Amino acid sequence: MNTEVAAAFYRGNRSFAVEARHASEPGPGEVAVRIAYCGICGTDMHVFHGNMDARVGLNRVIGHEMSGTVAVVGEGVSDVAVGQKVVVRPLDHCDECPSCAAGHRHICHNLKFLGLDTDGAMQEIWNVPAHTLHALPDGLRMDHAALIEPVAVACHDVRRSALRPGEDALVVGGGPIGILCAMVARERGAKVVLSEVNPNRVEIARKLGFDVVNPAEDDLPALVNERTGKKGADVVFEVSGTQAGVDAMTACAATRGRIVMVAIHARRPKIDLFKFFWRELELLGARVYEPEDYEQAIAIIAGGGVDADTVITDVSPLSGIQSAFEALDSSPTALKSLIKIGDGE
Amino acid sequence: MNTEVAAAFYRGNRSFAVEARHASEPGPGEVAVRIAYCGICGTDMHVFHGNMDARVGLNRVIGHEMSGTVAVVGEGVSDVAVGQKVVVRPLDHCDECPSCAAGHRHICHNLKFLGLDTDGAMQEIWNVPAHTLHALPDGLRMDHAALIEPVAVACHDVRRSALRPGEDALVVGGGPIGILCAMVARERGAKVVLSEVNPNRVEIARKLGFDVVNPAEDDLPALVNERTGKKGADVVFEVSGTQAGVDAMTACAATRGRIVMVAIHARRPKIDLFKFFWRELELLGARVYEPEDYEQAIAIIAGGGVDADTVITDVSPLSGIQSAFEALDSSPTALKSLIKIGDGE
Repeated sequence: MNTEVAAAFYRGNRSFAVEARHASEPGPGEVAVRIAYCGICGTDMHVFHGNMDARVGLNRVIGHEMSGTVAVVGEGVSDVAVGQKVVVRPLDHCDECPSCAAGHRHICHNLKFLGLDTDGAMQEIWNVPAHTLHALPDGLRMDHAALIEPVAVACHDVRRSALRPGEDALVVGGGPIGILCAMVARERGAKVVLSEVNPNRVEIARKLGFDVVNPAEDDLPALVNERTGKKGADVVFEVSGTQAGVDAMTACAATRGRIVMVAIHARRPKIDLFKFFWRELELLGARVYEPEDYEQAIAIIAGGGVDADTVITDVSPLSGIQSAFEALDSSPTALKSLIKIGDGE
Repeated sequence: MNTEVAAAFYRGNRSFAVEARHASEPGPGEVAVRIAYCGICGTDMHVFHGNMDARVGLNRVIGHEMSGTVAVVGEGVSDVAVGQKVVVRPLDHCDECPSCAAGHRHICHNLKFLGLDTDGAMQEIWNVPAHTLHALPDGLRMDHAALIEPVAVACHDVRRSALRPGEDALVVGGGPIGILCAMVARERGAKVVLSEVNPNRVEIARKLGFDVVNPAEDDLPALVNERTGKKGADVVFEVSGTQAGVDAMTACAATRGRIVMVAIHARRPKIDLFKFFWRELELLGARVYEPEDYEQAIAIIAGGGVDADTVITDVSPLSGIQSAFEALDSSPTALKSLIKIGDGE
């Protein structure tokens, strides 16, 4: 595979450059994947905004919400064949730290996130460790498959909550991950209320059939109480990353309610610990995903459990990556933008 | 039972009056218990300090950490006999609220705490609902039995943590409940580190054989890391009720560490929610106890799993209740003070 491929390099200052690079052979234990689609993640937007320059540098190919096809198999890789459609679970662990020793490799102390700590999927050919691959079923649309990574995040969040069918779930925050949490929770049989303040997102979520409350206009805890027979929400997903969201999560939870901390709170918010004591609440941190979350996400996407065509609001070619990122910054209605990189039938 | 008994009435302004009262017959479903000993709880100290006047009023018999003997059995009570040594689990639930419906009667929305919301055990005869009784094994010392209630708190906290033998536990705060959490965790096979800033309490905890760190003098997270092979504490009990304790609990927890919120935080502290996300931590509120916690506490006290003679630092007669409360306020070394009310063989 001595060939030139197109790749989008993040060069700092809100800019990408699409250039040709030499595609090297996959090393031992690696596989070269021909990328079909790659979605733009909130983390990718953080990179674009320059917030992660210290981590990613100024010559990084980012991207990890991808779908693709195995192009070349490296030495020692026996369980995957050329031509197999795949997604990559973009986590590379060390196998030596206490988290790995305890079996929690997805939160390895020395975790490398592919597409941030190493080059990612915004290029035609991506070499990855073979252990990161998940095979896709025949007939799955490759654009839909690019949603598997964020759906796997939602599957992990819902699995951490131990949600049971018929339970009341509240999702605080209606961005892409919040919407996907709500979809996965609904698909598992939960009665879902979604809280969102942005009127455009409220409208999108209502179009997706959700019971949406705007806490800027209505009394969220009172409405949750009313909809749950004065019990409160059995499960709360805090996806807003705001103090108001942290206040809402304790105010709306039922006795022994499970609150999943999905959002990344860079600052330390204030928290109602008395309510944790009083109602014996649980707070569960949730980060990325484990292999079973990927398998569940593949099954959900393959089974139509997520309305992929509504979630995907834009598709651009790799040559249009710069304007795709700029558009996401200014669009009030965008949910998920994909970059179409390869054939991607 | 037409008789006069002595009772200690809280009359506000840091004062008790010991007076005779008429002991009424137990009503249907009730039992009259002749009290042997009653311990002074931190909550009782809050009453003494006037912080709970609105809840308890100014003519309340408080007290709930008791041991005693069944004196009279009311109508319809068939499963307990006169002469049976007992402790009372001082919780009366409504059986109608969402918590009761979900089986969590100990955190009933309308919970009555006996000895606060109704009269308690600082009197010679106490009438209680029969469903609150736990029988004691023969031969258990009645002064030791007065520790069963606070030990049941610790048993509930440890049970909420799902502690497994060999795990590393950190107890933040070395007051009576912190010490009992540490003892129960140690009795369950945990390796325990106790964090405490008060030098007198540090000394007591060291005498009880605990590995004590004073975070005012030493770097607690570094020491916990060192003692746990850089893993952190599998289980943390936050019993301090302080911002420093809330900081320590997230700083010291291992990946997927379980943090039990034992303390009552009246104010909302700041919390490192990023760490919850990053290490997938869990926070579990814990309040009072369930019947199985009482049974475990009885077994632990009966089996000598708690060093009762060291924990009980003072015993006063009912006539000395005023000075016993005053002494607890000023003593730097007291752990548990008991009031000896009846014969209490």
